[in-house]
Formats: sequence, structure tokens, C-alpha cells
Amino acid sequence: MKVTVCRKEHFNAAHRLHNSNWSDEKNQAIFGKCNNPNFHGHNYELVVKVSGQPDVESGYVIDMKILSKIISKNVLDRFDHKNLNLDTKEFKNLIPTAENIAVVIWNILREKIDQQFEIKVVLYETERNFVEYPSN
Amino acid sequence: MKVTVCRKEHFNAAHRLHNSNWSDEKNQAIFGKCNNPNFHGHNYELVVKVSGQPDVESGYVIDMKILSKIISKNVLDRFDHKNLNLDTKEFKNLIPTAENIAVVIWNILREKIDQQFEIKVVLYETERNFVEYPSN
Amino acid sequence: MKVTVCRKEHFNAAHRLHNSNWSDEKNQAIFGKCNNPNFHGHNYELVVKVSGQPDVESGYVIDMKILSKIISKNVLDRFDHKNLNLDTKEFKNLIPTAENIAVVIWNILREKIDQQFEIKVVLYETERNFVEYPSN
Amino acid sequence: MKVTVCRKEHFNAAHRLHNSNWSDEKNQAIFGKCNNPNFHGHNYELVVKVSGQPDVESGYVIDMKILSKIISKNVLDRFDHKNLNLDTKEFKNLIPTAENIAVVIWNILREKIDQQFEIKVVLYETERNFVEYPSN
Amino acid sequence: MKVTVCRKEHFNAAHRLHNSNWSDEKNQAIFGKCNNPNFHGHNYELVVKVSGQPDVESGYVIDMKILSKIISKNVLDRFDHKNLNLDTKEFKNLIPTAENIAVVIWNILREKIDQQFEIKVVLYETERNFVEYPSN
Amino acid sequence: MKVTVCRKEHFNAAHRLHNSNWSDEKNQAIFGKCNNPNFHGHNYELVVKVSGQPDVESGYVIDMKILSKIISKNVLDRFDHKNLNLDTKEFKNLIPTAENIAVVIWNILREKIDQQFEIKVVLYETERNFVEYPSN
Repeated sequence: MKVTVCRKEHFNAAHRLHNSNWSDEKNQAIFGKCNNPNFHGHNYELVVKVSGQPDVESGYVIDMKILSKIISKNVLDRFDHKNLNLDTKEFKNLIPTAENIAVVIWNILREKIDQQFEIKVVLYETERNFVEYPSN
Repeated sequence: MKVTVCRKEHFNAAHRLHNSNWSDEKNQAIFGKCNNPNFHGHNYELVVKVSGQPDVESGYVIDMKILSKIISKNVLDRFDHKNLNLDTKEFKNLIPTAENIAVVIWNILREKIDQQFEIKVVLYETERNFVEYPSN
Repeated sequence: MKVTVCRKEHFNAAHRLHNSNWSDEKNQAIFGKCNNPNFHGHNYELVVKVSGQPDVESGYVIDMKILSKIISKNVLDRFDHKNLNLDTKEFKNLIPTAENIAVVIWNILREKIDQQFEIKVVLYETERNFVEYPSN
Repeated sequence: MKVTVCRKEHFNAAHRLHNSNWSDEKNQAIFGKCNNPNFHGHNYELVVKVSGQPDVESGYVIDMKILSKIISKNVLDRFDHKNLNLDTKEFKNLIPTAENIAVVIWNILREKIDQQFEIKVVLYETERNFVEYPSN
Repeated sequence: MKVTVCRKEHFNAAHRLHNSNWSDEKNQAIFGKCNNPNFHGHNYELVVKVSGQPDVESGYVIDMKILSKIISKNVLDRFDHKNLNLDTKEFKNLIPTAENIAVVIWNILREKIDQQFEIKVVLYETERNFVEYPSN
Repeated sequence: MKVTVCRKEHFNAAHRLHNSNWSDEKNQAIFGKCNNPNFHGHNYELVVKVSGQPDVESGYVIDMKILSKIISKNVLDRFDHKNLNLDTKEFKNLIPTAENIAVVIWNILREKIDQQFEIKVVLYETERNFVEYPSN
């Protein structure tokens, strides 16, 4: 049976939910306060879960210090203290909902973490709103 | 792959664990302090998880504001600041254990949330006692 | 300078906010949902703070294991899994608001903890509603 | 002795730390990533503490439902889902550091809460960075 | 569909990550500060999850008071306030990484909890580092 | 009025509560499980509070990034992943109770933080046991 190793990190960012193909009225109707043209922001808490067999010699599935560095270099350096809409290429044409941010982070990390491991991302936009990807 | 959207809400309620088919001694033996005839209570923290494909246009699986309203209208208005045994029809003949409350909430929400989405309920009776339904 | 030692405990209880000198209308207007005649309930988190000089030999202001036992015996055994209005003499004629519960607990503990120590009580009725006594 | 009643609320906002009297280099040296011209953001957790004598009839220092409404109307409606630098008059000419936001909120609430009560504000910018005003 | 009952417990322990088949240099390279020969320690938070059908008469999958006692007797009494490397037979020849501790606890509990129930262990070594076993 | 800036950090350490002037029986009677000769350990959460006037130009009482570095260099580098009894000079002849650790940290930081600021330390040994120094 496999063990899942989980590492929690955080980053702060500004964002705006806006679909440029929609009218202002529809954007306001769907996104409400999150459509504020001057942006708002969040403290995002990110949990990255890596599942695999523990190495017999080290007792580690993956060293959490290494996992933390992979997340820092590839996710936090890219998104922390940024405006997701203006400062990142990932959300130039993609609405930075929690759902989309989680999928983008999973895709980034999937290329950086050994394919023998399954990975999963949990992203807290607030304490009361969070998403998981993939679902199972 | 699907994304799971999670919304956390809370409600406060009184309850008593009691099986009227059992003797007082058996109720006391099984339920202990939770069998207090004058009730006790909890702050219930409720997480509702909804899994599905994000909509391409909005980036949402389900709008968390709408999900929050569905939970408020159908669960919180029914159970918040209530005596589960005396004030609700759901627990007139069903013992309000955390397990049963979670199943009841799932059944209520299953009728109110689009069938294309899978749903799951996590209910914290205390910080140290909580249940998940369904299990997987 | 003194050190403050803090111990966190919890208890669950049912209660009702009701002033029997008031009309039903006034009780409803002031206490709203908290006036439910069948009670509701909470997980109360209680922090007891004891300030004094650490003992030179033990390094303790007060042994937290002993502090925990004092709280258990005098507060938790009295209020845990109880209906504050019906099951306790303290709230027979006193409305069990968070403010009053905190003052009652402080008065109980003040007699059980050495007078050389200052004590303070913090009581969380919910994560978002809590009280401190005394204020400073 | 007085009792302190505490109510926790939250709001999300974007902000930028920038002193327009300083060079870009000095702004970068002092504020670092927080100087990002496109803003970043936070989930602010706000605790408002009100100290006074509990009312003999209600057992309340101040009704937390009323306190919550005062905070919502005067603080959350003003700052939630806003860009503090661009969308609010309070921070047009004042750097929105946690310190300054706490003082601004205290000043706003001081006018709305009865002078018989002392008030205090605790503002969490992140779980690890927070401020209290006034200090004692 | 099954319900999962979850009980959270905690224990404090000292440990050292060290593979006696490796050189000091390799131990230092792999385990870093966790290789300190004089040990360091953690507050471990342990969640045990038990999945099954709620009993029709009691409404319980498993009584959380009984589950708590099983964990206390078999896990906490063995590991709490212990040096995992020196005081326990389980880690005499097994490196006490979070992964290995979780597997050991699962194996201990698997023998003590009725086979009709599936069980799962979540172990928090710190708030930011935790493991789950089995993975699904 | 002054503003208090608070920064939360954490470190993990092993320790043993033992007074070498006492008999083994007395050590066991006073310190119980905490007297384990092979040590046990904790995740210590440390909050450092600095009170002063916000600087008019920066809006900062003290830059939390700088405060974090002062704590890292002077407290975390000294105590993190250490055995407090064996690896540190501060606790060679001082019992590492939470009270004593908090006083030691305060004394270390008092020399490193500008005297114009008042400082206070809160140290969580567990979520349920914590100390504050000085008391007011």
C-alpha cells in the first residue's frame, strides 16, 4: 500500500474574475464582488500531496524539504505577491478561479515530480472556500 | 479529470443520543454523557464537497456563493440554533449521531444539487470528532 | 516580571438565552434564535490563564497537569454535556450568555487557585464569538 | 471588573505598499515584494474587542449580532473585495500596512460604538503576521 | 454507502532520522537537521479514520469514545512522551520518518479494530508536514 | 497610542524536565512523563510581539521581514531541531519548562530589538499549553 506525503505552503496574490467575452452586466451577475476591476486578493494555502512507496533506505516517499523547494521554485516564485491576471502568463487568458489555479499548479508540478508518484493539489482560497484536484 | 469544490459552513444545535427502544441502563451504557435527558450541544462545522468539470466560460465547477446559499437555505435554516431531537422532523425517529446527521444532510443536498456533480459531506461535531459521507 | 501560564480545555453544553421578566416578544427581539425554547448548543473552548513567578526549583508557575485537573474537576464536571439552564445551579437565575459563563467560571476557579496568582478566563462560544474576563 | 466581548470577521483585499515620496529603489529596498506595482492581496481576519460591564437584564456587554452588523456596515462594506490603494479614500494617501489598516479601522469603529466601551482591534494579514491596536 | 468516523488524538515524542548503514556524511546529506544525534521532537497529531455501516440501533459506525480508548491504549501509551528511537521496539531498526510511523500505527490498529471496518491513518508531524496511509 | 506588531515562527526541539538536585522519585512525582531520561519533544509555536509607534514614512512599527530574520538568527538557529538540555548552553543548568524557555527567548531578543520598543513573547508548547512573558 502506498503512503501519501503532504506539504503545505502559502502565497499571497491579487486577482480578478472576469470573462472578456461577456458584457459587464454578465460579468457582474456571475462574478459579483470578485469582478472588481481594481482586483482584490487572498492568502492562498496550498497543500501538495505525493503518493508512492517509501524508500526502504531513507523511509521517505519524497523528502519534504525537497518537495518544499520544488513548490517554492515552480509555484511560489511564480505566483507569490503577484497579480495573477497581470503578472503571470498562465492567467493571461484563463480566469484565475480557485479551480483553474489548482489545475494550473497541478500541471506545473506534474512535470517536476517523478512520474512514479501520483500527485494531488488542495488549494484554500479562504478558510471556507477550497478546491481539490484531481477529485480522486 | 474533475475538480472538487469545497464550502465550509457552520451551525449550532442541541441534541440527545437516545434509543427509545432501549432501557435507561442500556442508553446510559452506550451513550454515556450524550444521553443527558436535558440535551447538550455542539458547534457543527460542515464541509460540502462538489465534484465536476469546471465550466469553460466561468472557470467554476459551481459558484461557491450559490453553493453557500443552497446549504444555508436547506441545511442551516433547518438545523441552526435548533434542538435536533425536538425541533426537526428528520430526527424525530432517528438518533442524531454525527453519522446520521451527515447522511441526512447528504440526502437533503443530493436533491438540490445538479446530478452531474458528485457530492460528499464532512461534518465536525467537535475538532476531534468528525465524519465523512460517503466514505469514498 | 511575571509569566502567564495558559491551559485550554473544552466542554459541550446546551443553553437558552431567556429573561423570564421579559415578554416573549422582547426575548425574541433581544435574543433572536438564541431564545429557542428547546435550546441549542455549543462546543465551548476555555482558556484559563494563571500569572505568577516561576518556582525556582521546578521552573513552573503552576504545573499545567494540576491546572488541567482543577479545571476538569471544578468546571468541566459541572458543565460538560449539560443543559446550562436546567442542569446547573449557577444558571438557574442567571442568563448563560458567554459573558456570564466566563464570570461564573472565573469565580469558581478563583477559590481553587492560590491567591498569589492572578487569573483570567477566555471563553470561545464559537470560533468567531468569544469573551475575556477580566478585561485587563 | 469588566468583560471583553470579541467578534471575528474577515475581508479580502488587494493592496500595494508604496511611498510616492521615495525613489523606486528605496520603495523596493523597504517594501520588497509588497511593492509590486500590480498589487497583491490578503485574506484579512479582523477581531474587534469591546470591553464593558455586562447589562444586568440581558447578560450582554454588547450583542454580538449587533457588533457584527456594525463591523459589516462600516468596515467590510468599505474594504471587502476592494483594492485598498485605488478603491478607498482612507488609503489614497496612507500606506496600507497592517499597522495603518488597524488604526484606520479602530478610528472608524470608535465613532460607531458607544463611548462607554473601550475598543481594541486585532488584524491578521496572514496567519503569521498580525497587529494589535492599541497596544494595551 | 459507508460512513467514515474520524478521531483526532495527539502525542509528543523525540526522534532522530538516521540510517546506521550509511556514513555520517550521507546521513547528514539526506536527513540534515533531522539527523541531530541528540534528537529533536514533535507534537504529533494523529487522525484515525474508520469506515463502515452505521449500526441501525445506535446510529454509530463505531463509538468514538471506544475508538479513542483503543488509540490511547495501543498508540499513545506506547509513543507519547517517548524517544521513538530509544524507548520503542518498533523503531529500534526502522527509521521513524512520518511515513514509517504512520504505517506502524496502522498495523497496530489494524489488529485492534474489527476487520469489517476499513481504517486509514493521517499523521501530522508539523502543521505543514503530514502523511496519509494508505493513500486511498 | 502604540501599535503591536506580532510575528509567529516555529521550531521543533527535544527536551527533558529534570532537576538534578532532586531524587529520581521527586523528579518523577513532579514532572511525570516529562521526566523521561531519553527525552521527548514538541513543535513550539513562538509569537513575538513588538509595540511602538508606526514610522510615518513607511507605516511600519518594525518590518516583519526584519523581525522574522532577527528571530530566525537568534532563536531558531539556536533551538530548532535541537535537544534543549544537551545542545544549548541556555538550558545546561536551567530546566526547559515553557516558562523558562519563554523568559530565555525574551532575554535574547531584548538585546537585539531597539529599546524604544516593548516586546512580549508567547510560546505554545502544545495547542493546549502555552505561556506569555511578561504577563502584562
